[in-house]
Amino acid sequence: MDYSARQMRLAADLRSARIDAVLVTHMANIRYLCGFSGSAGMLLIHAGRIAKLTFFTDGRYTQQAAEEVKGARVVICRQPIVVEACEGARRSRAKVLGFEADHLPYSSYQQLKQFLRGKIRLKPVAGLVERLRLIKDTDEIEKIRRAVILGANLLPAALSVIKPGIKETEIAAELELQARRSGAEGMSFETIVAAGERSALPHGRASSQPIPASGFIILDYGVILAGYCSDMTRTVHVGPVPPKRRQMYEAVREAQLASIEAVRPGIAAGEVDRAGRELLKKAGYDGYFTHSTGHGVGIEIHEGPRIAKGQVEKLAPGMVITIEPGIYTPDEGGVRIEDMVLVTASGNEVLTPAAKDLVAL
Amino acid sequence: MDYSARQMRLAADLRSARIDAVLVTHMANIRYLCGFSGSAGMLLIHAGRIAKLTFFTDGRYTQQAAEEVKGARVVICRQPIVVEACEGARRSRAKVLGFEADHLPYSSYQQLKQFLRGKIRLKPVAGLVERLRLIKDTDEIEKIRRAVILGANLLPAALSVIKPGIKETEIAAELELQARRSGAEGMSFETIVAAGERSALPHGRASSQPIPASGFIILDYGVILAGYCSDMTRTVHVGPVPPKRRQMYEAVREAQLASIEAVRPGIAAGEVDRAGRELLKKAGYDGYFTHSTGHGVGIEIHEGPRIAKGQVEKLAPGMVITIEPGIYTPDEGGVRIEDMVLVTASGNEVLTPAAKDLVAL
Repeated sequence: MDYSARQMRLAADLRSARIDAVLVTHMANIRYLCGFSGSAGMLLIHAGRIAKLTFFTDGRYTQQAAEEVKGARVVICRQPIVVEACEGARRSRAKVLGFEADHLPYSSYQQLKQFLRGKIRLKPVAGLVERLRLIKDTDEIEKIRRAVILGANLLPAALSVIKPGIKETEIAAELELQARRSGAEGMSFETIVAAGERSALPHGRASSQPIPASGFIILDYGVILAGYCSDMTRTVHVGPVPPKRRQMYEAVREAQLASIEAVRPGIAAGEVDRAGRELLKKAGYDGYFTHSTGHGVGIEIHEGPRIAKGQVEKLAPGMVITIEPGIYTPDEGGVRIEDMVLVTASGNEVLTPAAKDLVAL
Repeated sequence: MDYSARQMRLAADLRSARIDAVLVTHMANIRYLCGFSGSAGMLLIHAGRIAKLTFFTDGRYTQQAAEEVKGARVVICRQPIVVEACEGARRSRAKVLGFEADHLPYSSYQQLKQFLRGKIRLKPVAGLVERLRLIKDTDEIEKIRRAVILGANLLPAALSVIKPGIKETEIAAELELQARRSGAEGMSFETIVAAGERSALPHGRASSQPIPASGFIILDYGVILAGYCSDMTRTVHVGPVPPKRRQMYEAVREAQLASIEAVRPGIAAGEVDRAGRELLKKAGYDGYFTHSTGHGVGIEIHEGPRIAKGQVEKLAPGMVITIEPGIYTPDEGGVRIEDMVLVTASGNEVLTPAAKDLVAL
């Protein structure tokens, strides 16, 4: 990972944001900027031609910080991390200190204010690091690619255990076991296995409900590999597929392909959403597609850009997004199909290798 | 779960906090108060003799909210949740609206202020719901008990696969598979399997490192069952145990027993920490116990009270805490032993059933 390039880019951005330094508190942003993967710490970054970074953590992370942190001085705090980070800011000549307004809780902001005792002005900044993270560098794309392939390769094992009567959680267990065996660090979110009536829940985490004799099963899961997430959804059907359900499936598949087709540099995210949503409307499923089309994926499972109605943000090469339309009906259950898609210089590349034909088990 | 009792208790607390209503945004608090287990929503609660609750969520959760939410009117938002929640607050006669200062990001606070347009005064409140959650009710203790037993029962399977050369992640995989098979909804945090030199990392998530021929292995893991977490740590040794390491192990075991012994209603949390810490100091391990003794466990894996140096908060019946001293040395690796402990009217009850004799594999 080219941490040094990221640090320099951020340090330059601080100048345009008119702040002398920024206190990064969101762990995913800290990981992006200096490589630390633990769960407690704050990163202080000063503006300038050469980035000056100090990472504050506690005694639990002495060894891990020494091994992982790149391009930052490490301070193992004996007082609360926030206290020592404020002291660090005060010792520097910073007059205006930025903080991550989308992540810092209100009470921590009040603490900062108190510890800085008016000697440094606090300024809320939003999306400073997230903006950099929108565009994945070569290293990141390679890592995401590997996570996506690992994830997709788990599907056959999961499908092989599906039969009426077994619990949704047993299917999740098989997915998660194979993920670990393949070297995944973990799942990127709680595995969704939603069968029969439960497939009408867009977020139906695997439950102890048995698989019915006939109905859709939505499998939505992802893995973490080398710190990067994958995310995919396939919907299969247990038993012979009634025509109405086949129609539903095909409508979602066409919508998904239409949204993927729309992905290219310069297009507004909302247009990608519209491409699929309009097809579903025309097919008579207006009102059944109750969520947005997708989201960025990287160190976090949900990051920018949002692929949703009305979003004007323009796609750019290096963004990695999900395209995952779905429809959910009380009578026939639900269908969702999701791939991860890379925005390329000339259009897009679907990263998820798995087929999308309706599988009847 | 007796949601109604919780809601009434909170509504009464609002009066003493001199607020007319509170906007609950922390999902664990929302789950505690009304049962919703999804990941997006806000709960508006008005003060009064009869609690008046409105739960705002989005279209992805229509069915789940209908099934899960108890004692609150459900609003499925078409606009952003925060906008409709603010409208709800404005339609009521609330003059002062509390918000969860420890959870609400600074930028969301600014949004609230903007949407309320000065018609309602915002007041930061901290720990309002967490204070209720400190003391587990009978239902919760029963659920925690079941999660703890499920978790402890996984240990033999994990130990049975340990041998030099297999990866830490394979041990984690076995634990997680058996957890799922036993009905767990998931793990309560990223499974820690840290062997040999890595056992000196207090937070060593399972890695691809192979188990060495000789050394400690720390296994620290937990499950989620019916929404409640378990948490336990055992340290085992691969190969014959050198005397120095046996000494280390015994020192930690004695410290752990001493801290458990100290647990009773009315004692300050810091005293429980001190009981174990002093023994380790006397045994010559001053400076090697680099973290605090424990934390509360419930809907979240880390909740109050903190069992740490200097904490003056008094323990009370119904609290459920971990007791988990550990020492970490660069030469011999690390040892940690952790149980979950219930504070009872007369003292304490260790919930974790697993033995603590040093196992050499």
